[in-house]
Amino acid sequence: MTQQAAIALGVELRVLAGAPDESAARVVGGVQIGDYRDLAALREFARGCDVVTFDHEHVPSEHVEALADEVAVRPGAAALVHAQDKAVMRERLSAIGAPCPAWARVASAGELEAFAREHGRPFVLKAARGGYDGRGVWVFSSADEAAEVLASGTPLIVEELVPYERELAVVVARSPHGQGVSYPVVETVQKDGICVEVIAPAQGLDPEHAAQAQHVALKIANELGVTGVLAVEMFQLPGGRVVVNELAMRPHNSGHWTIEGARTSQFEQHLRAVLDLPLGSPSPVAPVVVMANLLGGEDPDVYRRYEHVMAHDPGIKIHFYGKEVRPGRKIGHVTALGTDVDDVRARARHAAVHLMTGEYV
Amino acid sequence: MTQQAAIALGVELRVLAGAPDESAARVVGGVQIGDYRDLAALREFARGCDVVTFDHEHVPSEHVEALADEVAVRPGAAALVHAQDKAVMRERLSAIGAPCPAWARVASAGELEAFAREHGRPFVLKAARGGYDGRGVWVFSSADEAAEVLASGTPLIVEELVPYERELAVVVARSPHGQGVSYPVVETVQKDGICVEVIAPAQGLDPEHAAQAQHVALKIANELGVTGVLAVEMFQLPGGRVVVNELAMRPHNSGHWTIEGARTSQFEQHLRAVLDLPLGSPSPVAPVVVMANLLGGEDPDVYRRYEHVMAHDPGIKIHFYGKEVRPGRKIGHVTALGTDVDDVRARARHAAVHLMTGEYV
Repeated sequence: MTQQAAIALGVELRVLAGAPDESAARVVGGVQIGDYRDLAALREFARGCDVVTFDHEHVPSEHVEALADEVAVRPGAAALVHAQDKAVMRERLSAIGAPCPAWARVASAGELEAFAREHGRPFVLKAARGGYDGRGVWVFSSADEAAEVLASGTPLIVEELVPYERELAVVVARSPHGQGVSYPVVETVQKDGICVEVIAPAQGLDPEHAAQAQHVALKIANELGVTGVLAVEMFQLPGGRVVVNELAMRPHNSGHWTIEGARTSQFEQHLRAVLDLPLGSPSPVAPVVVMANLLGGEDPDVYRRYEHVMAHDPGIKIHFYGKEVRPGRKIGHVTALGTDVDDVRARARHAAVHLMTGEYV
Repeated sequence: MTQQAAIALGVELRVLAGAPDESAARVVGGVQIGDYRDLAALREFARGCDVVTFDHEHVPSEHVEALADEVAVRPGAAALVHAQDKAVMRERLSAIGAPCPAWARVASAGELEAFAREHGRPFVLKAARGGYDGRGVWVFSSADEAAEVLASGTPLIVEELVPYERELAVVVARSPHGQGVSYPVVETVQKDGICVEVIAPAQGLDPEHAAQAQHVALKIANELGVTGVLAVEMFQLPGGRVVVNELAMRPHNSGHWTIEGARTSQFEQHLRAVLDLPLGSPSPVAPVVVMANLLGGEDPDVYRRYEHVMAHDPGIKIHFYGKEVRPGRKIGHVTALGTDVDDVRARARHAAVHLMTGEYV
């Protein structure tokens, strides 16, 4: 999706991919096959690039630092670590006054029980590093239940289980010049720990709480020195206030609606930010935009089902990532735009369900 | 720009390009370098493609026909010839009752003078084949002035010089199933024979004349059996009626505004049509959309001027084709969207002039 934005701006992308059939490698001319954990491969790739950026957070911090001696790396290692290490992130967010759940580093059953006595059960145990999309996150009610995880030696944090009303997300961008923009606050609808739908803007959100959420996201971007797009996933508490759940320092699923739904897509915004160009307007182009994720089903032939979906709704926008279809994997998304939220959600859902399953809803 | 649409749909593009630095070759993974006039190269390219289509009309008709024995070619040779040969186009349009200027095939001074006596002077002489963007078109007042062109032996047609009020264009698409859609009628503003600006929709156009123009374009697509996008360039006469000027059977400059300005871009529409998928909504997403072409100037460093343009207008959309910058060459375009036509035109013009010249207007 970044290539779509790069084409418009005449910016030439090169991609370091693990294999030639990865999504990005399929749509970009300059592809180097290599491992992002291999510093030599990263160095070879960076030669001839003006700027290096990321579409995931798994490149080791020390490699990101080493690369920065040779080329502009955005976001830089000092910022990126907050999207790589949940303990570092929580420490920093607490220090700058960003609202967080109660949390603590824990390494023993005693520490965990002490935290639970103060903040309640069940609690959420998280691996400080390597958590992604629900993996590395556990909900337990006692240190006994957590024994295996504690014994693994993985650095851990524990967080209170926040009694949230819904999940929100704010995508912001910041450039090296220090310019910042925020997209509208969206609601991310989760099912079995996976985001299935994003509603932009979040419906019925008090303007004051929306402003608070955007302020928190921009402040994090600024204080952490983020360059590029930052997605801040939040919980909205009863009463309306938000606390920060996770950070992603790249274009993020909660911002895919911006491709057709905002004047500047998050992918163009990320390019502008890492190239230190002035940022684009984040204004939405329709009163309501809904993005529904496509998760792989049993039948891999999604393309065959385009016909019904496109004929049914000539305004639906399909995005199919060219990934191998595996059950449960995010393989694409659809976007619907309109004025009535129930109607727009129904259109997105119809398209997504049919593309995933072949069923008519 | 077709690659941007192909990425979204998960459609894998391959490109036959004359050189590795051509615009399309720079942004697509599967590139074959070869000559579109070389049937062996075309055949090699077509192997493994599901559908072959074109981004210009210069592939020889007999090669297009030969390819069709091996792969789906859309548009087919029988349709494409109407965008390749102006005499064939005029004969066919006259036969189906599409409004045309008075015209005739001419090969001699006597025929030319006879036409001029009936339809007036000056008149327009056109090479039947090979005309593009003003080349191959001459305005003369007598057969004497045309002597050199007549002597060249190029097949020619003559047309009356239509006293038009403005130039309009209609982009339509038609699928092999026979489904058709029309985008709104636009005004194309020309300067020195080159389109500098497109205003969507054409302002102050009587709904009846707009409907006539769209009807003519859809009828041409249908009668000629076009598959893909068809752009019909028209003259609007005093009184409001239109006559057809030129045809292009591919995504066209007069439809570039649809990338951000319509629910379905002309490039996605072309892909849908040639893949025989249901066509997408051509609805505009803003009351007024203006596209201004970027023509190369003396200074090739257009990118350096992004900063001012983007800072001045965060909503402007820049498209830069990655072509070598040469004076007068179309090297990109900008698009502005809004509600007030004067404001939107001024924004597009400001961006285009600055990107082309570095001047502040």
